Amino acid sequence: MQPIFVLVRPQMGENIGAAARAMANFGLDNMRIVAPRDGWPNPKAVAMASGAGRLLDAAMVTEDTAAALADCTTVYATTARPRGLTKRVLTPEAAMGEASAKIAAGERVAVLFGPERAGLENDDIARANAIISVPVDPGYASLNLAQCALLTAYEWRRQTAEITADRVDYAKTEPATGVEVEKLAEHYEAQLDAAGMFYPEAKAEGMKVTLRNLWSRMPLTRADVQLLHGIMRQMVRWKERG
Amino acid sequence: MQPIFVLVRPQMGENIGAAARAMANFGLDNMRIVAPRDGWPNPKAVAMASGAGRLLDAAMVTEDTAAALADCTTVYATTARPRGLTKRVLTPEAAMGEASAKIAAGERVAVLFGPERAGLENDDIARANAIISVPVDPGYASLNLAQCALLTAYEWRRQTAEITADRVDYAKTEPATGVEVEKLAEHYEAQLDAAGMFYPEAKAEGMKVTLRNLWSRMPLTRADVQLLHGIMRQMVRWKERG
Repeated sequence: MQPIFVLVRPQMGENIGAAARAMANFGLDNMRIVAPRDGWPNPKAVAMASGAGRLLDAAMVTEDTAAALADCTTVYATTARPRGLTKRVLTPEAAMGEASAKIAAGERVAVLFGPERAGLENDDIARANAIISVPVDPGYASLNLAQCALLTAYEWRRQTAEITADRVDYAKTEPATGVEVEKLAEHYEAQLDAAGMFYPEAKAEGMKVTLRNLWSRMPLTRADVQLLHGIMRQMVRWKERG
Repeated sequence: MQPIFVLVRPQMGENIGAAARAMANFGLDNMRIVAPRDGWPNPKAVAMASGAGRLLDAAMVTEDTAAALADCTTVYATTARPRGLTKRVLTPEAAMGEASAKIAAGERVAVLFGPERAGLENDDIARANAIISVPVDPGYASLNLAQCALLTAYEWRRQTAEITADRVDYAKTEPATGVEVEKLAEHYEAQLDAAGMFYPEAKAEGMKVTLRNLWSRMPLTRADVQLLHGIMRQMVRWKERG
């Protein structure tokens, strides 16, 4: 189960479509629409949704907010500014973490998004159990409907999907093994020794340690190791040609 | 210090302006622009930036990516798809966490964003120390330039600003104290007893416990408590008028 995104009295069809795309990017597909200004279906919403049209086809459209929330047990209202209503105010992160726990416990969770120009009315916000407020810079707050939906959907996926935060893409190769790096180090050390690199004698050992440390610091792949062997072989061949 | 957002060969002025707004929302103001297709300055970028125009005025514009990165020590490249380059791939969350640590240690960090249609070229990506990939639903990935900048900027602020994740906005009131809730419970209990609510006798104690538990479960404010006293007083007055 997922949170339901409820667009309340949205004005521009383009923004409804953009909100559908934002949801689809993060795997959400349950949208409801309350009293869209330009009626429904809306061709501009469909054009903008490009590929996320199935959300619009499946969207429940209602006349008022109460009908859209009839089966919901927890409701969050997104709003940028304080409203003179005593209410919990959560970041998208805290709200989607809480929503995930509530949904796991069998609740049906909705998130209200207001119309573009003025945002939600207090009458809608009073129906919500808590407010979601994106922590924008107080000196510059200009998130639109689709951006607010994007950030909320992102937080849902970030906290519920199995995501690997830090991985390596190996392009047709794999990490070099210890013995491969060791042989590379030996190859370079031997040839550089022959080339007279480790001079004067007193500094030789320090230079060798620095060079070995360079190889071990690098996240080398097998392909890197082959390329580095090739570079050294080529320099030796060049020298031998005289 | 903050990460520098570098837009590489951006096409539409509107998207440059939208990226500036996305950055400004999360307190970022250091933008660089590499070879903008339609030249610079760009009136459409300025029109879209509405309020974030200072980022565009201050933006460094360069002819190539190398010039934009000349003073940077760590570079991230945003890209949606694998590129056949062996490279670390981070979520925006992991990357901005790492960037924050690197900046604190004195590094200068840049994030590359590619042109709208095709994204960054491999030549640009090869300059980056790691890739940032937004964990979108693999079945539907359609983030645009400004959305990618928005999510990256959001993660920067989420992990570096002092943000209260869960708070309560008190509208001209404050939480009720224990003694206030206790007196409310006593008021209701006494009047409901007089009204004959706690009947039959055998169930009276259980009903009283349930009622007390109701008050303590509610996050009542002083204003709520006054309103609830007023409700009960009014019902009693109404009854006494006969």
